[in-house]
Amino acid sequence: MVKKEEYARTVAYVLDAFAKAGIILTDAEKGNIEVADFGLSDLDNVGLQLLVYVNTERCCAKEMVLKPYQTCPEHRHMDGVENGVPYVGKEETFRVRRGTCYLYVDGEGKKEDIQARLPNTPVTVFHEIVLHEGEQYTMHPNTNHWFQAGPEGAIVSEFSTKSRDEADVFTDGRIRRIPEVEA
Amino acid sequence: MVKKEEYARTVAYVLDAFAKAGIILTDAEKGNIEVADFGLSDLDNVGLQLLVYVNTERCCAKEMVLKPYQTCPEHRHMDGVENGVPYVGKEETFRVRRGTCYLYVDGEGKKEDIQARLPNTPVTVFHEIVLHEGEQYTMHPNTNHWFQAGPEGAIVSEFSTKSRDEADVFTDGRIRRIPEVEA
Repeated sequence: MVKKEEYARTVAYVLDAFAKAGIILTDAEKGNIEVADFGLSDLDNVGLQLLVYVNTERCCAKEMVLKPYQTCPEHRHMDGVENGVPYVGKEETFRVRRGTCYLYVDGEGKKEDIQARLPNTPVTVFHEIVLHEGEQYTMHPNTNHWFQAGPEGAIVSEFSTKSRDEADVFTDGRIRRIPEVEA
Repeated sequence: MVKKEEYARTVAYVLDAFAKAGIILTDAEKGNIEVADFGLSDLDNVGLQLLVYVNTERCCAKEMVLKPYQTCPEHRHMDGVENGVPYVGKEETFRVRRGTCYLYVDGEGKKEDIQARLPNTPVTVFHEIVLHEGEQYTMHPNTNHWFQAGPEGAIVSEFSTKSRDEADVFTDGRIRRIPEVEA
């Protein structure tokens, strides 16, 4: 659970990062920043901040903000069934706007060789893609992935099919994706 | 057809607009700016500049740049069939990053009341949505729409399902959407 003052401090960090990057939000959006600690209560190590611009049945766009060395834990977007209708897992493109993003996906690569710091959550894939400002990478469904910001934090735009966060499958069995902020 | 020097001048305008907005591109992307005059050879009045970030079978993201009062002509994204497989028309969300965008869609609204200047291409829908910086609007398939930048030009992000520009249906029968730049 994210403590109330940690939430406020983190939202202030996010708004400052957006302002410095020239990313303009409405006042309503500024009040709608999501801070996810994935139920681990270790936000600065494992966590993610998001602003969802749009998420329809067909497509989704959001901005993600990571603090320095903060990690979004390993997960995959599986095919599934919703209201009796089968769907294909989420496809997503990450585009780095500010900072550096170390992204790890299924494929060749050894734990010992990666540039990211090993986070406080289990990770099993180590094929490294380093995304600098202006660079992007498209991930296909059913692929394990995790990512971490470099020393300056990162702002990453995500363009994707529909987001169904509650359907994400995390490697770390402790994780619950339902956002929880102290009342 | 876009003349060679007009193309170069327009790309310089676009790159300057991106730089001022803090939108960072790779060198490859800088060489890949699309300048569309829709075959009308009246670019400053009717035209659009684009950079496509990603366009897969499932989703698409791009930045669009408009010069002051430049108009993207009226069109709609219809359902269709591709390689024998039916598809639903494009859904798109416009998010204004810089400047103002006057957007017109099917619905109530009179030609006499709009804030945009009438462009040198026929328009038939006048339901006005004015998008300021940080504001956005989602358009559903099969809806006529056109849009124009305000006095300062505009940068508009588009998040959508797959783009099939060649399948767009334009109100102006003269229009060909295939980009053509003087060799």
